[in-house]
Amino acid sequence: MSEETTSVHYLNYLDLDKVLDAQHPLSGEGKEAAHEEMLFIIIHQTYELWFKQMLHEIDSVMDLFRNDQINESNVGVIVRRMNRVNKIMTTLVGQLDILETMTSLDFLDFRHHLSPASGFQSHQFRKLEVMLGLKIKKRHQFGGCPYHAQFEGEKKEEILNLEESESLFTLLEKWLERIPFLNMEGFDFTKKYEGAVNQMLDKEISGIKAANLTDSDREIRIRMIEENRKYFERVLDEKEHNKAMEEGETKLSYKATMSALLINLYRDQPILHLPYQFLRSVVELDHKIATWRFRHVQMVEKMLGQKIGTGGSSGQGYLNKTVDQHKLFTDLANISTLMISRSYLPELPQNIKDTLGFNYKK
Amino acid sequence: MSEETTSVHYLNYLDLDKVLDAQHPLSGEGKEAAHEEMLFIIIHQTYELWFKQMLHEIDSVMDLFRNDQINESNVGVIVRRMNRVNKIMTTLVGQLDILETMTSLDFLDFRHHLSPASGFQSHQFRKLEVMLGLKIKKRHQFGGCPYHAQFEGEKKEEILNLEESESLFTLLEKWLERIPFLNMEGFDFTKKYEGAVNQMLDKEISGIKAANLTDSDREIRIRMIEENRKYFERVLDEKEHNKAMEEGETKLSYKATMSALLINLYRDQPILHLPYQFLRSVVELDHKIATWRFRHVQMVEKMLGQKIGTGGSSGQGYLNKTVDQHKLFTDLANISTLMISRSYLPELPQNIKDTLGFNYKK
Amino acid sequence: MSEETTSVHYLNYLDLDKVLDAQHPLSGEGKEAAHEEMLFIIIHQTYELWFKQMLHEIDSVMDLFRNDQINESNVGVIVRRMNRVNKIMTTLVGQLDILETMTSLDFLDFRHHLSPASGFQSHQFRKLEVMLGLKIKKRHQFGGCPYHAQFEGEKKEEILNLEESESLFTLLEKWLERIPFLNMEGFDFTKKYEGAVNQMLDKEISGIKAANLTDSDREIRIRMIEENRKYFERVLDEKEHNKAMEEGETKLSYKATMSALLINLYRDQPILHLPYQFLRSVVELDHKIATWRFRHVQMVEKMLGQKIGTGGSSGQGYLNKTVDQHKLFTDLANISTLMISRSYLPELPQNIKDTLGFNYKK
Amino acid sequence: MSEETTSVHYLNYLDLDKVLDAQHPLSGEGKEAAHEEMLFIIIHQTYELWFKQMLHEIDSVMDLFRNDQINESNVGVIVRRMNRVNKIMTTLVGQLDILETMTSLDFLDFRHHLSPASGFQSHQFRKLEVMLGLKIKKRHQFGGCPYHAQFEGEKKEEILNLEESESLFTLLEKWLERIPFLNMEGFDFTKKYEGAVNQMLDKEISGIKAANLTDSDREIRIRMIEENRKYFERVLDEKEHNKAMEEGETKLSYKATMSALLINLYRDQPILHLPYQFLRSVVELDHKIATWRFRHVQMVEKMLGQKIGTGGSSGQGYLNKTVDQHKLFTDLANISTLMISRSYLPELPQNIKDTLGFNYKK
Repeated sequence: MSEETTSVHYLNYLDLDKVLDAQHPLSGEGKEAAHEEMLFIIIHQTYELWFKQMLHEIDSVMDLFRNDQINESNVGVIVRRMNRVNKIMTTLVGQLDILETMTSLDFLDFRHHLSPASGFQSHQFRKLEVMLGLKIKKRHQFGGCPYHAQFEGEKKEEILNLEESESLFTLLEKWLERIPFLNMEGFDFTKKYEGAVNQMLDKEISGIKAANLTDSDREIRIRMIEENRKYFERVLDEKEHNKAMEEGETKLSYKATMSALLINLYRDQPILHLPYQFLRSVVELDHKIATWRFRHVQMVEKMLGQKIGTGGSSGQGYLNKTVDQHKLFTDLANISTLMISRSYLPELPQNIKDTLGFNYKK
Repeated sequence: MSEETTSVHYLNYLDLDKVLDAQHPLSGEGKEAAHEEMLFIIIHQTYELWFKQMLHEIDSVMDLFRNDQINESNVGVIVRRMNRVNKIMTTLVGQLDILETMTSLDFLDFRHHLSPASGFQSHQFRKLEVMLGLKIKKRHQFGGCPYHAQFEGEKKEEILNLEESESLFTLLEKWLERIPFLNMEGFDFTKKYEGAVNQMLDKEISGIKAANLTDSDREIRIRMIEENRKYFERVLDEKEHNKAMEEGETKLSYKATMSALLINLYRDQPILHLPYQFLRSVVELDHKIATWRFRHVQMVEKMLGQKIGTGGSSGQGYLNKTVDQHKLFTDLANISTLMISRSYLPELPQNIKDTLGFNYKK
Repeated sequence: MSEETTSVHYLNYLDLDKVLDAQHPLSGEGKEAAHEEMLFIIIHQTYELWFKQMLHEIDSVMDLFRNDQINESNVGVIVRRMNRVNKIMTTLVGQLDILETMTSLDFLDFRHHLSPASGFQSHQFRKLEVMLGLKIKKRHQFGGCPYHAQFEGEKKEEILNLEESESLFTLLEKWLERIPFLNMEGFDFTKKYEGAVNQMLDKEISGIKAANLTDSDREIRIRMIEENRKYFERVLDEKEHNKAMEEGETKLSYKATMSALLINLYRDQPILHLPYQFLRSVVELDHKIATWRFRHVQMVEKMLGQKIGTGGSSGQGYLNKTVDQHKLFTDLANISTLMISRSYLPELPQNIKDTLGFNYKK
Repeated sequence: MSEETTSVHYLNYLDLDKVLDAQHPLSGEGKEAAHEEMLFIIIHQTYELWFKQMLHEIDSVMDLFRNDQINESNVGVIVRRMNRVNKIMTTLVGQLDILETMTSLDFLDFRHHLSPASGFQSHQFRKLEVMLGLKIKKRHQFGGCPYHAQFEGEKKEEILNLEESESLFTLLEKWLERIPFLNMEGFDFTKKYEGAVNQMLDKEISGIKAANLTDSDREIRIRMIEENRKYFERVLDEKEHNKAMEEGETKLSYKATMSALLINLYRDQPILHLPYQFLRSVVELDHKIATWRFRHVQMVEKMLGQKIGTGGSSGQGYLNKTVDQHKLFTDLANISTLMISRSYLPELPQNIKDTLGFNYKK
């Protein structure tokens, strides 16, 4: 079935002579070997292979975003690749179960050989973090040295260059800013949305006033709604938003935030459907990486308790900090705070619906 | 194949008329109904069914522990039931994926009907926490009220009684204290272990002294080892341990801790194997519950962002606090800190090995 | 945050008094009870709850398809609901792990009470099968009776009515037949596709002829390609297709098959993207149900070996037959056989691309 | 914390220069490359890494079994390693989800380069099958050639040698035969068990006779029980068993079967607990490998439909045959057919219980 004339063997295609000859337990060979060291090596190698695959996917997604105008059919491609990355993360989290069959006592049989090798030194994982958008100043620093002190020569340079380049975060932000639907043919999204929010809050207040509540209950509830109103006002006010950005409370620009909100609210319009899937996939990736870090902390706790890691760190403490702190797309997750019920959602005028719909006329 | 004379129908056996008639969406029936409310109800019902099953298992395990002397063959039963509980937790974590198919916008279609109903009000989950050993004073309190303010009448009383009763934690602690192997026929475990630790640390220090290191490197490494030595000394000193207990840093008694350490180190002795599996299963349960809380936080973040929960809480913040704070068996996980490599492990004398072995003579 | 004035308690909202009072072990209560019967009851109840949810979703999807013209924004809704059904199936497969913690010996403690109750009698699961499109004549019959002999009165009638009504299969088929893209503005898809196939096969043949192969190797390879050509010809010939339908080898109509092929090949065109996701979700559901049956067989094997089931069946044998035989959407999976590499895929003319694209002009 | 003087870097320890430089897509580099080929290569490499780990574990388990007398503490080690192998299999099944994100169309972009490379050619997987006990004559043969025709030189020799050597199956069988509990101090297990079976069947018959049944119903039920009796007789008769072995209906020797039955029935006796866990782990492995094959078939169906595989096979058909046919430990799973309820189980005399218990006297 092939047009090729040379025949390919599985063994060579996968370069298995190399891959299966790359396990060198330091505890020795044969009888003296610590049985579990093989597992330790192999699981880390599978992690690195999967990191390579994730970099391959994220890199290609970023490439597609780098074009000023994304071809519509590419958004489907992007969503599929992000979904693949998320499936990989599911496997990476799940296979920690294998490593957890190695007990503390097993680990101690070879742990002393490893110093100071440590997962900190995974160049690919650092690249991944930087490509997604993790900035050095946002990192939880460990042991007084910047993370890239682990690397030298080309590898260090590559990381430093990536720090300076566009990340998935910045590309996504620019793409959201370019989306041309915030102001369409007289439909000013932000204004319409603000009106809807106020209508909702007013209705909630009148509901409470009409309800059979104790005075203090009523007061509490109304206060809650007024808090809410302030929250919405702050978010919708571009100046306030920029102030929050300066103070590091939020990272996503005002315009990008509004576009993300629009996509979330009107996701059932054909042209917004795939962008919506994409935004969800990014939040999911953020969550899956956090889950991986979290389960990693648990694994370390089981294996080492409060022992110092091979890299000289109290690994558990460090990792625990990164679970939340290294999340990148919290602003997208927080769009949920701004959602309003479909019953308050401003109906799109027919001309706008047409614009967002398919060309095909039935 | 049955001795019964009446025939049983699946429908009646499972009381499906009741179970499948217990879904009452508040958003209405038919066209006005919020489509997603059914999912919200059904997933919570499956959670409650599984909680019932977990209570059934934990309760039976506690019963077996309440006997002063546990029949040997029961430890196998206990381990199997704990493993079942852990498999249930795996499902409970996994099925959050189903709930996450409901988006923020879907949820807002019926969320306003639910107030103030909330998962806080799950009586069974509170019972489970209390039975495992979570004390009210250790709980992250929410909104100024003790958690049992949610319940009334019999349900409240049941919870309060459970608070006063023995928990899995206290039963496990007593069982560990009763284990008769810390001092056997002249084998003083604690002393032997302490000797082994010192031998290990001394060897590490001489290794460092002999090594070709810079002075500052050598100093750092030696200081690390001396820190370690202090840690071991503190843990092995009963008075220090009791002080740590008073200060709330540790909860498990000195004697129970030593027994747990012995079981972990000599787990391959026949009589200790199942006890070891049991200790691991308990730590695993603790971790799985923590993972469930953690994933729950993520789900709430996706669904509500920073919105206030139906129970009036910023659910995300509250839940996030409980992930670590509500862990119960950290002292057992921390036994790993005390593990030493098999090469330093004091060899058991033959008479002790015989005592811990099977009766059967080959 | 609610407009409601009455307050809702979790307990009542979920009707837990009913749900948690529906477990009636036949082996008795207290000491005599078979401990594992509770698990057996509860897991089956969770299955039934999830079946209810699946029916809720499939029913709503079918409703959306019943409209002659599906609103574009509904395809997104349909895809999301199918994905939810698939996530539910993932949980249903996964939670078999819990049931497998019950061993044969445990089961025998209460199995004799159950006769002849059996999972065969799940009315909801039968409904689900029928709604998806499983016809009675395609079922692997068990024990000389049609499957609906298990039911009486209304429940039987409901099943018989469903057998006569449209299924997801027939609705999907009609929808595919309605899709207006097989012949657009002079683009005759089937003809273009046939040309591309022949071009591909011819190129493969010339490649083989030019290659340095032994005579017998060359002959074998060319024969394989000619087999392939016949396969394509048969599939593309409407008469042959109809004959295959009569003989029960295929179920999906010629026109629907062509549309499914078009969607698969041109899935990156905006208007085809969600239809493509939908077709995939259906094949995935088919596979997940088959996996569930398969794992079910394994579980029965572990629990009963070759024992006769409580319903009087050698459950294992019956179930094993249904794994493949009850698959419904094999014709959609087989579309893959017809795929050709992108390099042979006929390029769509720009006017066709525009038609399949969004209305919005950049 | 290390006694080592040289410091180890993660990169070198894992030999990442080799592992991460072993991906050579045949579709080319850069723009012409088929994006998905990288996934295809990397997932197969992770499979091979995990196969290496499985071989490492199975090999070590077989080593422990090769000793004529297994050290008691080793059974715990064996169980833990089998559990690890099963966790690996869980990951191998689960990560098929990643490969399924590659669609048929994606695969066709590079599939023509691969011929005739194919998973058939995985040397490690063949080794694993042979080591577990799969004999060449039991294999579903493919394409007229024995499976080892794929290999040459040393690799072929290694496989042929393994075919002649002891497998996990034969080692397990011998170990079961050596277990000295079938006849202990006057307790003849087989006789006692036979008596219990007859008592059970008699009681079932009298139950049916006393019951209020129609004549035909009664007759049917009694006939079923008599069938059952014949089944038990056949199994318990050594000659019949040997005949069944000759005819290939069963593979496990009579004595080993009886020991496996004893272990299953009296698993709560301390000395039998870990052997019981081991027997379960082996059946689980058999099932997990079958599940992997089954899901593999589904994946191929989605990817290729009924296309011919790169190895020249209609992969789907071949794989489908192996799902059941290549199972190895069915005889152990079938022990469940012989289980009887605890209420009929012959009580062990106290001296036997003591023999099977621990030495330690409370």
